[in-house]
Amino acid sequence: MLDRMVYLDNAASTRLDEKVLDAMKPYYFDIYAVATSEFGYSMGIDAKEALEGARQTIASSIGASAEEIVFTSGETESSNMAIKGVVAALLGKKDKHIIVSKIEDFPVLNTAKAFEKAGYKVDFISVDSEGILDLEEFKKAINENTALVSIQHANQEIGTLQDLGTIARLCKEKGVLLHTDATHSYTRVPIDVSKIPVDLVTMSAHTIHGPRGVGALYIRKGTPINKWMDGGFQESNRRAGLENIPGAVGFAKAVELVTPEENESLSTLRDHIIQKAEEEISHVTLNGSRTRRVPHNANITFHYVEGESMTLHLDMRGFAVSTGSACFSRSLEASHVILGIGGDHERAHGSLRFTLGRYNTMEDADTIIDAIKEIVEQLRAISPLYENK
Amino acid sequence: MLDRMVYLDNAASTRLDEKVLDAMKPYYFDIYAVATSEFGYSMGIDAKEALEGARQTIASSIGASAEEIVFTSGETESSNMAIKGVVAALLGKKDKHIIVSKIEDFPVLNTAKAFEKAGYKVDFISVDSEGILDLEEFKKAINENTALVSIQHANQEIGTLQDLGTIARLCKEKGVLLHTDATHSYTRVPIDVSKIPVDLVTMSAHTIHGPRGVGALYIRKGTPINKWMDGGFQESNRRAGLENIPGAVGFAKAVELVTPEENESLSTLRDHIIQKAEEEISHVTLNGSRTRRVPHNANITFHYVEGESMTLHLDMRGFAVSTGSACFSRSLEASHVILGIGGDHERAHGSLRFTLGRYNTMEDADTIIDAIKEIVEQLRAISPLYENK
Repeated sequence: MLDRMVYLDNAASTRLDEKVLDAMKPYYFDIYAVATSEFGYSMGIDAKEALEGARQTIASSIGASAEEIVFTSGETESSNMAIKGVVAALLGKKDKHIIVSKIEDFPVLNTAKAFEKAGYKVDFISVDSEGILDLEEFKKAINENTALVSIQHANQEIGTLQDLGTIARLCKEKGVLLHTDATHSYTRVPIDVSKIPVDLVTMSAHTIHGPRGVGALYIRKGTPINKWMDGGFQESNRRAGLENIPGAVGFAKAVELVTPEENESLSTLRDHIIQKAEEEISHVTLNGSRTRRVPHNANITFHYVEGESMTLHLDMRGFAVSTGSACFSRSLEASHVILGIGGDHERAHGSLRFTLGRYNTMEDADTIIDAIKEIVEQLRAISPLYENK
Repeated sequence: MLDRMVYLDNAASTRLDEKVLDAMKPYYFDIYAVATSEFGYSMGIDAKEALEGARQTIASSIGASAEEIVFTSGETESSNMAIKGVVAALLGKKDKHIIVSKIEDFPVLNTAKAFEKAGYKVDFISVDSEGILDLEEFKKAINENTALVSIQHANQEIGTLQDLGTIARLCKEKGVLLHTDATHSYTRVPIDVSKIPVDLVTMSAHTIHGPRGVGALYIRKGTPINKWMDGGFQESNRRAGLENIPGAVGFAKAVELVTPEENESLSTLRDHIIQKAEEEISHVTLNGSRTRRVPHNANITFHYVEGESMTLHLDMRGFAVSTGSACFSRSLEASHVILGIGGDHERAHGSLRFTLGRYNTMEDADTIIDAIKEIVEQLRAISPLYENK
């Protein structure tokens, strides 16, 4: 039994870094004015400078200009704003046609479904057994009049990285705009918009030890996009709402704290979890790609056992992991991602997702697999599925 | 010269209370899981309990049930969700007809204008010289097929309180839904939805020393309203997006910290500012009502001087106030509120808004009026307007 909980689920990356809160505090207690420009007073100008500094940090992290970054309340808002804003701006200029992958996270997937319900043609492109987009199917679907393509950078459950460069070039050739939800890769795997012609990028602070309720959307200069929400003229009149300056500053600090060394060490942890699970436990399947994978994700199916049972047993032993996505954890539906890569319901329900963060150690990786080994053995011993395998 | 800045503008209420951050911290550093219900693990359940506890606090503060409260990213989102969500849900069932007042804050005003542009009939009801809604004009405008009425509780610039009870009863008689933006009255002046038949109420944490980027929308049980944003199933499937649990907990704490005694003391400060300005400075006009006014707002026009000049001079002396609303401070346009109560551009531009918060003292009130007196005398001495008055 451990003397503390070990988080290897979403919580591993949603825990705020103390340095992030330290960076935010001055904007809660000292420079707490509304951001103003030339007509304001000094604290308003200081607040504005902090906001613009944070914007520059986010911009630089992906090779963008500051004016191409809009702050939002997170992943969901960024992706809704990107897709709905562009599609509305292109109404009458392009066909009512959108392309997404089958394994998008819910903000993109369910926005696409909402457009489908509203009469749009939506192509949900297949992925292969590792979660990689079927480029041939994609090429057949896209045409000059497609309004928008939205293909994620990394998958939220299995961590598979798409070949964004190739997808972006295919879009560019057809003159079609591309949005990517980079929530689950941001700062862990580089995106350089000065090299890859992607037009919109969703980012969020909550996956990198930043504050919750804060995200950003990259909008390439010149991209047609409607304003998100009506109200004030904030964010260069692209997104109304009082600026969350402490949140923006915290987000920027979270970005600065991610280092290549940390990402390297996360991928070492990840590989250790995968290797140890495969070596020490029978009937396991790695979900996703062995190589094209974000450094902080492992997703493994332990066959003949239920993910829900495993998470409960692990919880009692002091480990937190998830089965399926955060949203799926609220229901017993099978993950659309595992089904999307050709898995069946049994594989989906027996899957555990490990999300790694700054506070995880090699000891965590070792002890959780030891615990899983024991739990899997116990559960299989009473499983009719295992007996009859 | 003061040894510190004194904030009597929006910043007076956006400064976070230390106790709010103390309440939020456990959810940044200890209980930082995604909220889960029965299928989750213990920290997820603790997180869920914290979220639901915060929801109950917000609900109780207005006589609502917890399930009638949805957390949002703030005032702008709450008002956009309320109006767009209800109007979309009633499409085809009611006429394309919306009623708002002429002096709404931008989220409501500009949402209404967006509907007008989209072909809706929007009635912008007049207010009298104190900012009080013209009920006769309102009665003529409303009919059984009106989709939605949105009338603010208190004004964002002049603090005038509407007679929400009467407006709600008039809506009820016609079977028309009512939204009120209560951002600028919330916790300072009670709203009891168990007594007043209002259907939707916008609230925000940033006006009561709570965290920025956090708000709520009260939605009376049974109110037809479309989901806001597509994505996950959060907020009982009414608003997608990872829950900002530290934000919700901080919002609830901010609500708990407001007391009737504090509101009483704010109204004493407010009255002192108004009385002293009227007694000691010539050619001043109180904007708004002397009696139907939130306790933390004073708005005074100092004729023959420019608000922008006054704010700059006050800033140099260590005082922060605003002229017009936060949004207007970014331009030199005249406040639509001052124009709405029958003021001209001169009156709008010479207006100063005083917003009072927990950290203001009677000394602040005294010294700022002394400073304004000197500044107004200096500015008038060089003003051709004053010379030719």
